[in-house]
Amino acid sequence: MSGGESGEEPDGLVKYRRVRNGLVIVNTGEGKGKTTAALGVIFRAWGRDFRIRMFQFIKHTGARFGEHRAADRLGIPIDGLGDGFTWLSKDMDRTAALAVEQWERCKRTIAEGDEEIVVLDEFTYAMHYGWVEVGDVVDTLKRRPDTMHVIITGRYAPQELIDCADLVTEMKLIKHPYEEKGIRAQQGIEF
Amino acid sequence: MSGGESGEEPDGLVKYRRVRNGLVIVNTGEGKGKTTAALGVIFRAWGRDFRIRMFQFIKHTGARFGEHRAADRLGIPIDGLGDGFTWLSKDMDRTAALAVEQWERCKRTIAEGDEEIVVLDEFTYAMHYGWVEVGDVVDTLKRRPDTMHVIITGRYAPQELIDCADLVTEMKLIKHPYEEKGIRAQQGIEF
Repeated sequence: MSGGESGEEPDGLVKYRRVRNGLVIVNTGEGKGKTTAALGVIFRAWGRDFRIRMFQFIKHTGARFGEHRAADRLGIPIDGLGDGFTWLSKDMDRTAALAVEQWERCKRTIAEGDEEIVVLDEFTYAMHYGWVEVGDVVDTLKRRPDTMHVIITGRYAPQELIDCADLVTEMKLIKHPYEEKGIRAQQGIEF
Repeated sequence: MSGGESGEEPDGLVKYRRVRNGLVIVNTGEGKGKTTAALGVIFRAWGRDFRIRMFQFIKHTGARFGEHRAADRLGIPIDGLGDGFTWLSKDMDRTAALAVEQWERCKRTIAEGDEEIVVLDEFTYAMHYGWVEVGDVVDTLKRRPDTMHVIITGRYAPQELIDCADLVTEMKLIKHPYEEKGIRAQQGIEF
């Protein structure tokens, strides 16, 4: 990708100057903070009037976590499509089908190129479990506008994705309140 | 700390029921996403109408990063006090004095107990460089209301702080665009 600073849009739109080098950012690892750091970028970027869209995988489509409430109020679209997949899910075909459908939506949004930041939350699982081909993801990322940042979160980021990414952070669990004291996830902090 | 679920406030204020177990959360390590994940918690928590206050250390008092712009619009107080300390700072006494002053402010806010989430951003450096005593910090955290979450970010979190924390995550750098491609920090993503 070449730098996007030249702003060659005929109508001189500001959007093609603000993002200089669209990055592929991956937040992975077993620790906390992968989705949360993506939300932090959204918070920052909203403060700078970036056009942002978040797609959530896996989580229940109707989830009304803190981030959904905040995003609704701020007019940031969060598109969820999932059935709350866990190790106990009974209908894995359905889980997989939803992930594939969601990825097709993401591809359209990335190709359209209207967003400055696209977040694919918990998307690594779809690759890890083989529902979505990593090669297809890498191709899509490579063909995106060079002024678009894409943030992908989740454990088990495949090596091919890491190879294609610009910024990769592993969130490593050092200490967890559930393991230490039996304290469960809480509103406002973890969802 | 005992659980705060009982809501013993005479006037039945909701605030003492929402946070069940106030956590001390530490985001540390060399990687990206420490402050960003704290901002993500702020985003979530704002979506649930939590009372939030953020104190920033080190960063220039007048910084107008994406997070400041967003927080201003949303009415979330971010109190900065710092002179942009780097390894090249000439007046370390001033940097240290500002950190001590900022910590005194934090202590007052923590003791007052009105907030549900208090973020001490880049505060670890103040302890690491010996400007603020870790013992004083741990005492302050232990004496806080048990329904208050405190989030501390920055590299070099001292062991005594980690021992007292509930949730500790190390952000580990796997790949960085500056090192890989010479791409510098960008608006909306990193500030």
